[in-house]
Amino acid sequence: MTQTVLVVYAHPEPMSLTRRFVSETIQTLEQQGHEVLQSDLYGMNWKAHFDQDDFPNRLDNDRLSLIHESGHAYTTGQQTQDVEAEQQKLLAADAVIFHFPLWWFGMPAILKGWIDRVYAYGFAYGYKGQGNRYRYGDGIFKGKRALLSVMIGGPADDYGPRGINGPLDELLFPITHGALFFPGFDVLPTHAIYGTGKLEQGTAEKALTAWRLRLRNIFNETPIPFRHQNSGDYQRHTLADHLAAGESGLSIHMDHHSPEF
Amino acid sequence: MTQTVLVVYAHPEPMSLTRRFVSETIQTLEQQGHEVLQSDLYGMNWKAHFDQDDFPNRLDNDRLSLIHESGHAYTTGQQTQDVEAEQQKLLAADAVIFHFPLWWFGMPAILKGWIDRVYAYGFAYGYKGQGNRYRYGDGIFKGKRALLSVMIGGPADDYGPRGINGPLDELLFPITHGALFFPGFDVLPTHAIYGTGKLEQGTAEKALTAWRLRLRNIFNETPIPFRHQNSGDYQRHTLADHLAAGESGLSIHMDHHSPEF
Repeated sequence: MTQTVLVVYAHPEPMSLTRRFVSETIQTLEQQGHEVLQSDLYGMNWKAHFDQDDFPNRLDNDRLSLIHESGHAYTTGQQTQDVEAEQQKLLAADAVIFHFPLWWFGMPAILKGWIDRVYAYGFAYGYKGQGNRYRYGDGIFKGKRALLSVMIGGPADDYGPRGINGPLDELLFPITHGALFFPGFDVLPTHAIYGTGKLEQGTAEKALTAWRLRLRNIFNETPIPFRHQNSGDYQRHTLADHLAAGESGLSIHMDHHSPEF
Repeated sequence: MTQTVLVVYAHPEPMSLTRRFVSETIQTLEQQGHEVLQSDLYGMNWKAHFDQDDFPNRLDNDRLSLIHESGHAYTTGQQTQDVEAEQQKLLAADAVIFHFPLWWFGMPAILKGWIDRVYAYGFAYGYKGQGNRYRYGDGIFKGKRALLSVMIGGPADDYGPRGINGPLDELLFPITHGALFFPGFDVLPTHAIYGTGKLEQGTAEKALTAWRLRLRNIFNETPIPFRHQNSGDYQRHTLADHLAAGESGLSIHMDHHSPEF
């Protein structure tokens, strides 16, 4: 079945490993018959600053409230053309793949600025004008899948369960859970390549092959079992006492007993 | 004793709560006799994209390696003027305070772009040309303090120990531990204001007063007890088996038994 996949990527160097992965993604998905949309953030010179220029026609010209102006621009069709175009790509996509290098344990600024600006009020949050009602499993992207493909300079051990940097999945939780699951995506396990600063040619080729094989299955993979806000697991947005009893931290928001996991 | 404090802030609206906190910070610290340096990222129109324009004189004009060019530009004095100026402010500071709104569980892109670009190789990582030897407690900012002051739209409960967003301190770990403790800062507990979208005037005034009182003590406060890489707690950058035995996750990188805590 033909699906539409949006590939969002953030690296300025066409010969970088990140961009080689992007090429592999596009080629593999097209060979499978999927339609591929692209957002080459550096190539587009994507505006990263979220500011007054996002709102040429404001509700309040005296004081800039980003939330209020975002909601107003979104509902009245007065968003900037670049933001509107990205939202249309997201709506058209069945899956979104993000390719980026991990910089200081997070996204490059240009990609964070894509989230900051494209995720309008009424669209990615405040969905249906209902505040926090539709989030974490519900939301505008419900039924779509998302996946991070991350290039990491340091060694895998530093990101292990007890590695000094912290476990990669917990460092990326603000993105996977916060920026993707929140507005409704089913989030697939992150695809990480470590030690990219010192990768030998043969190792890179093997990594590309493994990625190509994984890509063929992304519409069948089991997502990360993040708990849905409206599933009954939460009481007033706090995890019910009987679930992961006595525990805290990020990992309690995954249901490791879910039948699919 | 007069100290120098760098205030880095990221909000485009001068009347925002973030900027009111910034004004309070500057006024309070100056009244105490401290010297205050400022980086108003929106006001400076800070360049957020880390790209080829950061390196006008490159080692390799064919393929852009950001790490190699960063190290080369830093060691040969060929960085761009804006990056060089921020590094000088950091070196002059005894403490750095970051004021920003939490957007999608992280920094606004413009602030992430400040980290991405100012944190050069040889400066904030690869210190002394020694790879990963000087980090997490050592590093160029050793002896300096850093503090996040964060404005959060949502309610505090959502960021509690079992709140649906995840605990704030764990969501900010990539910044406090990853971007601040890594290059050597002593990091103070984050100062968070919740529910900023609906804050009444009286509540805002109380929050500003509490902040003013806290500010007077920042050079005496006990930092977050993150474990030092070179303290003996880690073996090959993995936490030693006998510490937080059997546990994993971000919180094991804090020593709650440290005598200071």
